[in-house]
Amino acid sequence: MVEPVAWATVSSPEPSTTVRLGVLGCGNVGAALVRLIADQRSAIAARTGLNLEVTRVAVRNLSRERPVELPEGVLTRDAAAVVTDPEVDLVVELIGGIEPARELITAALTAGKPVVTGNKELLANVGPELYAVADQHGVDLLFEAAVAGGIPVVRALRESLRGEPLHRVLGIINGTTNFILTKMAAEGADYGAALSEAQALGYAERDPTADVEGYDAGAKAAIMATIAFGSRVVAGDVYHEGISGITAHDIAMAKRLGYVVKLLGIAELDRETGEVAVRVHPAMVPLAHPLASVNGSYNAVFVEGDAVGQLMFYGRGAGGAPTASAVLGDVIDAADHLVHGTSAGLGTFQRARIRPIDETTAEYLLSMEVVDQPGVLHAVTGVFARHGVSIRAAEQEGAGPAARLVFITHEAKEADVQATVRQLRDLDVVRQVGGLLRVIGA
Amino acid sequence: MVEPVAWATVSSPEPSTTVRLGVLGCGNVGAALVRLIADQRSAIAARTGLNLEVTRVAVRNLSRERPVELPEGVLTRDAAAVVTDPEVDLVVELIGGIEPARELITAALTAGKPVVTGNKELLANVGPELYAVADQHGVDLLFEAAVAGGIPVVRALRESLRGEPLHRVLGIINGTTNFILTKMAAEGADYGAALSEAQALGYAERDPTADVEGYDAGAKAAIMATIAFGSRVVAGDVYHEGISGITAHDIAMAKRLGYVVKLLGIAELDRETGEVAVRVHPAMVPLAHPLASVNGSYNAVFVEGDAVGQLMFYGRGAGGAPTASAVLGDVIDAADHLVHGTSAGLGTFQRARIRPIDETTAEYLLSMEVVDQPGVLHAVTGVFARHGVSIRAAEQEGAGPAARLVFITHEAKEADVQATVRQLRDLDVVRQVGGLLRVIGA
Repeated sequence: MVEPVAWATVSSPEPSTTVRLGVLGCGNVGAALVRLIADQRSAIAARTGLNLEVTRVAVRNLSRERPVELPEGVLTRDAAAVVTDPEVDLVVELIGGIEPARELITAALTAGKPVVTGNKELLANVGPELYAVADQHGVDLLFEAAVAGGIPVVRALRESLRGEPLHRVLGIINGTTNFILTKMAAEGADYGAALSEAQALGYAERDPTADVEGYDAGAKAAIMATIAFGSRVVAGDVYHEGISGITAHDIAMAKRLGYVVKLLGIAELDRETGEVAVRVHPAMVPLAHPLASVNGSYNAVFVEGDAVGQLMFYGRGAGGAPTASAVLGDVIDAADHLVHGTSAGLGTFQRARIRPIDETTAEYLLSMEVVDQPGVLHAVTGVFARHGVSIRAAEQEGAGPAARLVFITHEAKEADVQATVRQLRDLDVVRQVGGLLRVIGA
Repeated sequence: MVEPVAWATVSSPEPSTTVRLGVLGCGNVGAALVRLIADQRSAIAARTGLNLEVTRVAVRNLSRERPVELPEGVLTRDAAAVVTDPEVDLVVELIGGIEPARELITAALTAGKPVVTGNKELLANVGPELYAVADQHGVDLLFEAAVAGGIPVVRALRESLRGEPLHRVLGIINGTTNFILTKMAAEGADYGAALSEAQALGYAERDPTADVEGYDAGAKAAIMATIAFGSRVVAGDVYHEGISGITAHDIAMAKRLGYVVKLLGIAELDRETGEVAVRVHPAMVPLAHPLASVNGSYNAVFVEGDAVGQLMFYGRGAGGAPTASAVLGDVIDAADHLVHGTSAGLGTFQRARIRPIDETTAEYLLSMEVVDQPGVLHAVTGVFARHGVSIRAAEQEGAGPAARLVFITHEAKEADVQATVRQLRDLDVVRQVGGLLRVIGA
């Protein structure tokens, strides 16, 4: 255990105010939070005048051994009682899922108790409703840990960039898939082998669906879009495409062309129409782009605004300790606001039109196995032309039965590209149309 | 001019409160701020309920043409009158330098008016005194723009990471020197040529001393150390070494060994003793480190904490629009606090012992031209051994009169390495001891 730093041992000039915490859930993050508060308590008191005390911790199973020691009477199985307990000033919700988390958080906010949560599923589904409850009761609802774990990007979007005309947020916001794609790129491994290794190392669940199919990233992208653009976006608004279809060949081809393949959560605001597009899919990122060197289980969020230009926030997107660090930052803020009788205020979220994936545009990479005979390129490019998809680069890989054509388009509309792919599949000279990858501009 | 986004045109549920701004200084940043507020005013009002109005702008020269249009009566030459003007609720200080900025800010804070500033020179010298004045009067003193321009790293350190046991902050926090070093690395250019190009492009001043000798980065490092560790650190506590001694050969050698040369501002806290070390010097950064790919005039701040692990914040460190974006984020926050009768609170800063450069440790790269004869390596390594500096790697470059030895040490104490260099200079077989570069661990 690390000793408190020296300046923390000097007494604070103002006497400290105790804020009593009720923590719902004591898994990885909850336990790390309780430990971190124990370690940092005197340092926090010296610096902020706040004495944080964990008075209740609700768990599912009282007899399970905990990685932290808690005083008698702190542990309980009754989460609802923690929320209404007069000895709890501030609630930290770490149980996840929609119910009973929604009910518990609503009860806490309604009782005037600030809430800190890391619950991305909840916020991606009913976030704006809960934000309204918090604002209505003038208390904080803070959720730094819900997006990109320890990286303080939620606060940056909520506060630092509130006046900035943002138009795009791109994030590597799922560590499991980034670990798998990094493995595939570094070792030429195929998807199955990289997934197995991720599972063996504990980076992927036994059922990896939520991660590899992009649902986890989608929830985070919905939350980011909401706070970045002030628009109500829910998980159901997000277009999803996972990484299970990415092959070692896709990655090798991307590399040869100067790209890496990353699973991105993308939120875009069309400032002319006010439409918002939010999607998760694998994308080709140019090697020189700052997101290209975000490897392993690291996360990063890349933000584009008219005035600020390009920003990137990089760090640990998951894990008990980094996530607990994000929760603690919020707890200190909420406690400070509580003591001063104020709150951060989430502001107003308007319902924007969600632009369907068919109407979005990108550059695309398409590869296909073809019959190696004269006239094939002519036939194939004819299909592109008929759908108004303009080609930026084309090349042939291999020859004979292994012949393959690779195209990169200019900016094109998703619907037109999909129609192109469908018609290419019907061509006799095309054996198979391979991965369709969108290219992210530098 | 960009149209307000769609959601901004929907009226806010709460009527907006007007907050009147007095802006001191209307150069690049001031003009960009006034423009940004004009563009974003209705969007900000819709989202936050705040109506920002620029009522006074103090300038040195009334007749100079401004890149923004201001209503009659807004421009004035009397900065002191702006601060006391009853039609000014909040002061934005963008004139720079210590006086009269200190006096003006103190007057504003004492009058209960929040202040937003980007003045790194001021804060690096008398920051903690001003922070105390702000806290004493319960008003905000916000300064996101003082470190790394548009990158919201100050707020992250002040708020998100207040409870985090941080031990090191490394920053590429001067765009001019990063531009020069990037040029040198990319083109093999020597220092003089790269500096001339930076001057021609407006990235470097005609007198580049403050940038290339590390004074600008030193001021920012002092501010970062203060808010990261809660310790009072001033510009005079910072050890400086600039980039004017870096040669094309140094950079080529670093590259061959798997490093890039970056000018870093480094703040370290020894959590056992409470000592703080703050320094600016060129350093060899491993190619795989996230700071290694921060190129051109971009800035980045890399933060290390026990719980959160490694974080990096990347973006534009200078320029009118990015800096104005940072100022606007602070203005909205301060205005919001003012309306709600609260303030962010800077907390308590303890006077820590500053560890002198001689007592700091690092790995070092040393290169020297030597006489190419038997026994030289033995004589040279003897000097290292006598000073207790352990060698991790050694190699000879070239032969005959061009012979050169390159060493990388294990972690060693600065004083011991400096004594080693002095004694090496006295050896007959050593013609010249070249660049001494510290190596930053991955």
